[in-house]
Amino acid sequence: MSNPIVFYFDFSSPYSYLAGELIDALAAKYGRTVDWRPMLLGAIFKVTGSVPLVQIPVKGEYSLRDFSRSARFHNLPFKFPEKFPLAALSAARAYYWLFEQDGDLARRFAQAVFRAYWVDGRDISDLAVVQDIAAKLGIDQDALAEAVAKPEIKERLKQETDGAIAKGIFGAPYLIVDGEPFWGVDRLPQLEQWLKTGGF
Amino acid sequence: MSNPIVFYFDFSSPYSYLAGELIDALAAKYGRTVDWRPMLLGAIFKVTGSVPLVQIPVKGEYSLRDFSRSARFHNLPFKFPEKFPLAALSAARAYYWLFEQDGDLARRFAQAVFRAYWVDGRDISDLAVVQDIAAKLGIDQDALAEAVAKPEIKERLKQETDGAIAKGIFGAPYLIVDGEPFWGVDRLPQLEQWLKTGGF
Repeated sequence: MSNPIVFYFDFSSPYSYLAGELIDALAAKYGRTVDWRPMLLGAIFKVTGSVPLVQIPVKGEYSLRDFSRSARFHNLPFKFPEKFPLAALSAARAYYWLFEQDGDLARRFAQAVFRAYWVDGRDISDLAVVQDIAAKLGIDQDALAEAVAKPEIKERLKQETDGAIAKGIFGAPYLIVDGEPFWGVDRLPQLEQWLKTGGF
Repeated sequence: MSNPIVFYFDFSSPYSYLAGELIDALAAKYGRTVDWRPMLLGAIFKVTGSVPLVQIPVKGEYSLRDFSRSARFHNLPFKFPEKFPLAALSAARAYYWLFEQDGDLARRFAQAVFRAYWVDGRDISDLAVVQDIAAKLGIDQDALAEAVAKPEIKERLKQETDGAIAKGIFGAPYLIVDGEPFWGVDRLPQLEQWLKTGGF
């Protein structure tokens, strides 16, 4: 059995959304599965001293154009949300709560969160919005609200983020194939070549 | 006649070297020519407050791996030079001096400078090295040394760099197709799609 592709992401990262729409099919093509791991880019940026791309003078304006164009290039719907940046704490915590119960459901929830934010412009930092997204997948809203308030779930997300920092992860999406790191949705062609050839 | 693709680059940028190896053939495939324009990334970084990628903590280490892997992905030779970063002032000035006389020779000189640095690890900030590279293309070494010391050639490079800053260029390679900007060698697939479809 091949190792899964580890996919670190933040729900509030536009390139992570694009990677999330593409990575499962790409992995399946080479008999791989994907281990989805939300993390908090805000915590990582505090360590590295980075800021969200759109806040960087000059480069920020280009980035906005590049987000949309990259989405069109991949034939994916995209609309830059009114509220940005935001911390998708509840959504990330809910992901790990679901993951403990049902990995497939957790992944479908993650994709639904991405689309709610990056296509429909919903405020995914709002617990009520996250509950509504979950409810549409048949997930119990009250159980979700209770779960994301629990210390062990909060700790789980913190550990995943700390683990990402310890691995040298500085941005998102960040994908790891058999120990080889690939940063950015624009590295999927190299990642595919890696899967195809076993390293190059 | 279609507009040329404008290719802004710095000789000391590894991704610019890769783009320089790929862009002419890509352009020719769609009946386009390429307008090569060296600029000084150091001057741009002073304005934007950026630093060379390899100097950024954590991201720098990933970048070194990514430079090499990106070269292998494109089947291009690559060796990270001992002397980095450097300011390729004489080479960039010599380019514009040659360009005034013979555009094709200037482009061949630019490619030779890129390879001298990114494949052979030569110190292209040294005028003697630049003269040697030029001599191999039949260019007069003494005339080159004289030219790059002239105020009008120095001013030309300064104007090109200032022009790049005025256009909002913040990094290299930076390519413009009919007004549409593409930053990075990893945007060549989108640039190609743009050439193919006339915009998407």
